[in-house]
Amino acid sequence: MTETALANLQNLYRIFTVPEAPDSTLGAVDQAISENVADFLQKHIVALERSLEDIENDFSASKIPEEPSFVSAYAEFVKQKLVAQSVHTAAPGFIGHMTSALPYFMLPLSRIMTALNQNLVKVETSKAFTPMERQVLAMLHHLIYHQDDSFYSRWIHASQHALGAFCSGGTIANTTALWVARNQLCGPDGTFAGIAREGLFKALQHLDYNGLAVLVSRRAHYSLGKAVDLLGIGRDNLVLVDTDADSRIDMRALKSAYLKLQHQNIRPLALVGIAGTTETGHIDPLEELADFAAEIGCHFHVDAAWGGPTLFSKTHSPLLKGIERADSVTIDAHKQLYVPMGAGMVLFKDPHALSAIEHHANYILRHGSKDLGSHTLEGSRPGMAMLVHAGLSIIGRKGYELLIDLGIEKGRQFARLINAHSNFELITAPELNILTYRFNPAWLQKKMGQLDQQQLPQVNQLLDLITQEVQKRQREAGKTFVSRTRLRSAHYHGEQISVFRAVLANPLTTEAILAAVLEEQCAIVKETEVQNFIEEIKQLVA
Amino acid sequence: MTETALANLQNLYRIFTVPEAPDSTLGAVDQAISENVADFLQKHIVALERSLEDIENDFSASKIPEEPSFVSAYAEFVKQKLVAQSVHTAAPGFIGHMTSALPYFMLPLSRIMTALNQNLVKVETSKAFTPMERQVLAMLHHLIYHQDDSFYSRWIHASQHALGAFCSGGTIANTTALWVARNQLCGPDGTFAGIAREGLFKALQHLDYNGLAVLVSRRAHYSLGKAVDLLGIGRDNLVLVDTDADSRIDMRALKSAYLKLQHQNIRPLALVGIAGTTETGHIDPLEELADFAAEIGCHFHVDAAWGGPTLFSKTHSPLLKGIERADSVTIDAHKQLYVPMGAGMVLFKDPHALSAIEHHANYILRHGSKDLGSHTLEGSRPGMAMLVHAGLSIIGRKGYELLIDLGIEKGRQFARLINAHSNFELITAPELNILTYRFNPAWLQKKMGQLDQQQLPQVNQLLDLITQEVQKRQREAGKTFVSRTRLRSAHYHGEQISVFRAVLANPLTTEAILAAVLEEQCAIVKETEVQNFIEEIKQLVA
Repeated sequence: MTETALANLQNLYRIFTVPEAPDSTLGAVDQAISENVADFLQKHIVALERSLEDIENDFSASKIPEEPSFVSAYAEFVKQKLVAQSVHTAAPGFIGHMTSALPYFMLPLSRIMTALNQNLVKVETSKAFTPMERQVLAMLHHLIYHQDDSFYSRWIHASQHALGAFCSGGTIANTTALWVARNQLCGPDGTFAGIAREGLFKALQHLDYNGLAVLVSRRAHYSLGKAVDLLGIGRDNLVLVDTDADSRIDMRALKSAYLKLQHQNIRPLALVGIAGTTETGHIDPLEELADFAAEIGCHFHVDAAWGGPTLFSKTHSPLLKGIERADSVTIDAHKQLYVPMGAGMVLFKDPHALSAIEHHANYILRHGSKDLGSHTLEGSRPGMAMLVHAGLSIIGRKGYELLIDLGIEKGRQFARLINAHSNFELITAPELNILTYRFNPAWLQKKMGQLDQQQLPQVNQLLDLITQEVQKRQREAGKTFVSRTRLRSAHYHGEQISVFRAVLANPLTTEAILAAVLEEQCAIVKETEVQNFIEEIKQLVA
Repeated sequence: MTETALANLQNLYRIFTVPEAPDSTLGAVDQAISENVADFLQKHIVALERSLEDIENDFSASKIPEEPSFVSAYAEFVKQKLVAQSVHTAAPGFIGHMTSALPYFMLPLSRIMTALNQNLVKVETSKAFTPMERQVLAMLHHLIYHQDDSFYSRWIHASQHALGAFCSGGTIANTTALWVARNQLCGPDGTFAGIAREGLFKALQHLDYNGLAVLVSRRAHYSLGKAVDLLGIGRDNLVLVDTDADSRIDMRALKSAYLKLQHQNIRPLALVGIAGTTETGHIDPLEELADFAAEIGCHFHVDAAWGGPTLFSKTHSPLLKGIERADSVTIDAHKQLYVPMGAGMVLFKDPHALSAIEHHANYILRHGSKDLGSHTLEGSRPGMAMLVHAGLSIIGRKGYELLIDLGIEKGRQFARLINAHSNFELITAPELNILTYRFNPAWLQKKMGQLDQQQLPQVNQLLDLITQEVQKRQREAGKTFVSRTRLRSAHYHGEQISVFRAVLANPLTTEAILAAVLEEQCAIVKETEVQNFIEEIKQLVA
């Protein structure tokens, strides 16, 4: 071995065996995060936004570096180029997304998880993590379905069964639910070996349908579109049903959509209710949906990725009445369970449901093993369930209840601020902790009712430009943040309008911060580029 | 507000605002991991295995606790019930799985990632993390396809395109590849709007096929079975082609399988080559597969989840010759890129390929945005790409080359030890760093050739029981670990036999440890329960 080769080898062993010194760059960053993460983020994330094109220059080399580099040099790079230019998702003034501040204990526990580097696909690489994840699934199952003790003691650790599947997020959860629903509907039958084996083409030939469909309101999360594409159902067969004035699925429209499918000989595979729509936070009438699903005999799935944890609250859980009748429910842990990114779950009422997608291999997931991987869409997975376990144990039901109640109260508080402010217009009131609104000057609001059929869309288009411009400038300034979306507004005859979207899930957000968000938006409106749009409106309605 | 409610509220704010004290239980664990993770794992993971049923008792409550609990109490629980009973995946004597020790810097960097809690689905919650992930994909793309600089400067940050998709692991990567292949094959055509919109049933009617199929060798990872189920293709249409004596796909068998499909009017959707099979680490003849895929005009995917990083090695990369002709390639980062669990990638040769599964929404992933989520199967995702970026930057190509070369050399070293030991039988020699073997006493090995058609399967069945029993006992003792699988052995006329499986990817595994693994297995064989099987064999062949 040459001297260089030997030196390289020694360096290689070093990175696997010698810890970072506490006074190294990386050690110091690590220590700073341990001591006070909020302070670290505040200090190191640069508020003012560099343009994305500018940032891209730091990440433009396409070749893997030939030579190793020092950890300290890389740590400097991370500080200056990555951390500094990341988004301060935990900031209490960032009320535009579904990622909140994390409880402190999540960080050291995450490190334990990473250090242990378990792989939950099988018991052999996860041991106690397997029953722990099964317990987490049982606890969430109980939160939704509240079966009795004998039910859980029978199923919680049963090798051939699963009360749900832990996964990387709501998209995989929703996909898993529809996959199960599809495979159950098209299961083995006589000479037909089932869709899992023979595929969708033969399944529809066997069942003599022209297609399968999924019914859901227009407010559906876009993951359902991906899921029906992936599952071979086709996006045209994701039937997006109109909503009522309160963003909830319109039951009459649903029934007529169903009749239309019947007429086309297309079989509804699943009816999906939403408990907390991504854009407005509204909850579908789950009880009525459960009735209808029972009536037409199809799988009832509830996408409660956002709103599921409302079940913690004695005051607000009645909003989700009927969820206990769902065949499957999606809940995201990285949203309102306050767990770091990358944790979702789908729960199934029937412990046998996941058998529809069961799979085995020769080296793991053998028949009779308790390997979690035999019932999950994903394969190798980290021990994220540990952080859910920690949250449920440390925060407890009452703690989560408090978080939910606070968020909903804060939503109402923000709605009051918006309503009290003459230049803002509340578009969707918060049923949970999400609301939408827009800037609309007082004088214009008074006139909106009198605009004719030509003027109204033109005015709304200019207001859209204002919303888009204000949202962009506010984001770039980096002090506070709301997101934006486009909604059909019942108030404006179903016209699509652009709105600010606020998500009130960070317990550190105060009323003063909410007021400041509005203040900043008013200040941005005064800037020339935005004023130009206002002038245009003035001319239009003059 | 009552006094209790106020106290609860204050406690709630505390967990979001007050860091763990360094002298708290959790703080102390955190510190210990920072200082010396190897030492921490060694001390806290209890080697001797408690039975799973016993461990389950600690995770059997199915109700979410009503009351919050102290972080310190929970930290104690984690130490005693979770950490102590986890699997020491980083131990150099644990050579049965694909999870290795991690370089030290991965831990503090993981903490930075968790603390920042970015969501890579969109730029608004990930800013610099978006170009960083695109760079990682470009670097891996370059490793495989080595296009020129102008190619990468054109595509690396192009908003409507993607060189690949980062995901939670190889299963999602393989599924994404086949999803793209399916949607490209069944794309829009005349009045047919494409499978993404109209679904698989209408696609096959339009194309006038009886089905779609995926061709791959019998050594395929089980994720491909899940993928064809999910995609509506059906598991029966995953055509598992026989392998040659070296565990590589048999090209003649492949061609005859193809002819059979043609006869049935089933269209091959994709041909999959494996670069490092999960069970034996062998590499398919990728060049020949590329030729054949071109000949029959179908998508060529390479599952290089395990073996992809072999491309780092100047010595061994020729084994993967032909991979640069693949339409798509899967590489897992949590395997041979030494990144913590939960990181995989799929790369596409053509920057337009992922358009086949592109999707948009109103509030994110808008047309023209650079949001990564418009081309991924998953939705919200953590910033794991940062750890790949760190590995590539700090370890560099040469460092990874050393790791790959060391692993392959260690595989050969272990094969030599097995061959030199009269009581072990090497079943599959290592092409990369994976091999399989079994205990087979010297006297029996000599006789195996003379056994008749009845005796041979009976002896093999008894040897299987020995393999299974030894593997289980070794795992339970907790000092060292190999896994096991079942393989068709060319040497035994295609009979399925149970084998030990060793994966030599941990740079800290020494020759002495490998010798100790064999020693321990010999010692276990001497235990009565195993000796009984040996007695049975003796009687059988006497």
